[in-house]
Amino acid sequence: MGDRKKILVTNDDGITAPGIAALIEVAKEFGEVLVVSPDSPQSGQGHAITIYDPIRLKKVDIFPGIEAYECSGTPVDCVKLAKNVILNDLKPDLCVSGINHGGNAGVNILYSGTMSAAMEASIEGIPSIGFSLLDFAHDADFSASQHYARKIIKAVLEKDLVESKLLNVNIPHLPMSDIKGIKVCSQANAMWVEDYAEGQDPRGGKYYWLAGKFVDRDPDNHGGDVRALSTGYVSIVPSMHDLTRFEAIPELKYMESL
Amino acid sequence: MGDRKKILVTNDDGITAPGIAALIEVAKEFGEVLVVSPDSPQSGQGHAITIYDPIRLKKVDIFPGIEAYECSGTPVDCVKLAKNVILNDLKPDLCVSGINHGGNAGVNILYSGTMSAAMEASIEGIPSIGFSLLDFAHDADFSASQHYARKIIKAVLEKDLVESKLLNVNIPHLPMSDIKGIKVCSQANAMWVEDYAEGQDPRGGKYYWLAGKFVDRDPDNHGGDVRALSTGYVSIVPSMHDLTRFEAIPELKYMESL
Repeated sequence: MGDRKKILVTNDDGITAPGIAALIEVAKEFGEVLVVSPDSPQSGQGHAITIYDPIRLKKVDIFPGIEAYECSGTPVDCVKLAKNVILNDLKPDLCVSGINHGGNAGVNILYSGTMSAAMEASIEGIPSIGFSLLDFAHDADFSASQHYARKIIKAVLEKDLVESKLLNVNIPHLPMSDIKGIKVCSQANAMWVEDYAEGQDPRGGKYYWLAGKFVDRDPDNHGGDVRALSTGYVSIVPSMHDLTRFEAIPELKYMESL
Repeated sequence: MGDRKKILVTNDDGITAPGIAALIEVAKEFGEVLVVSPDSPQSGQGHAITIYDPIRLKKVDIFPGIEAYECSGTPVDCVKLAKNVILNDLKPDLCVSGINHGGNAGVNILYSGTMSAAMEASIEGIPSIGFSLLDFAHDADFSASQHYARKIIKAVLEKDLVESKLLNVNIPHLPMSDIKGIKVCSQANAMWVEDYAEGQDPRGGKYYWLAGKFVDRDPDNHGGDVRALSTGYVSIVPSMHDLTRFEAIPELKYMESL
């Protein structure tokens, strides 16, 4: 690479997760890396931000030669503090988030702290990529994920993509040799069907604990990310933070005369 | 009304906020109301869900004649528990969230627990509306908001809207007589520009506390919700949970041969 890029790395599994170490290894091949990551697991935090409480940032020395901070806030807080406090409003060239332990296809993009961190960076105009491996295990094998992350980061840094400022990349839980390639997809209509576990705490109080299974409601959609993953492909979904459903505006216009 | 509708009411300011009482007053004119709302303020929780901890639900008797529960989880947890545990997977006819103390125009839809609760219901196929008043005060005057909420709820229950399953409604902080009407809008390109307050806790530890101002980056967009509000209109933005940026798929297709 000619000029060294500045790359912000974050995640939602926390700074000690093997997935972020795997992503840092790849990112540092492309430039100067800054890590700002939660000091505790933050899965399912979505686009949450910390409003009512002060946030702590602590410099840590756990990645040789890499400037890194652990943060008491959410993944989105990490990105906001990286940009506003650590980088003093200088924008990095790229933000990468992950590699998440567990998939973020379909509607998971909304619940995922990994993707929300990437989205927060993209709101700031920073090209951003979230990477997720469909394996929740702490000791997951990230080698295939690293291979594809390297290809995709290189492509994003080299091409000047106009429309694609935020990519949701998922990697199937397969050995490298069984992955068939990459598919550019849409977000599948796949969601969680809940089934809360009920129980009693040690003082006899009733509780509910989130459980459930991930269901593709439109399995015939061959263009969706869930289908790409289940047939052995890495999925890339170009994503966005403008949630306007423009198609709906005409049918709502009559409300202006209510 | 002929048949009585089942309406789920939630919010993110918590079950004791005056805004939810104002919304319940309106909702009960249209049918049978079920309230499931957080037991503490949850502003800024976005689409966060509780994964690592058990969640509590407690029946409360604070709204005369209304079945109501306070929930230890996030706004999205409230909707999931309402549907899965309390309603035993029976879908309400409508979910309304709010009335939020504070606006949720522009990119705030992502940070807002109010809108994320409505979005969670819409993922489940339930028509949903989030209402937000541009006044953070605890003793805000919700009378104009109630007037417009009544009109919009009536319209949504009477019309069989096909494309518009999730509406983001904001009401300007104006006396009723100064509100000019309703505008159907897109999500403005308006965002927070952060400015973290730095301080020291009582033990000398450094902290950062989120501050900043809300800035419209595209003030010439007369179709955006921020502009509608600043010119005295109630804004309605039809919204969605499919975050695919379809326009970007063609420019990314080359990645399939990486």
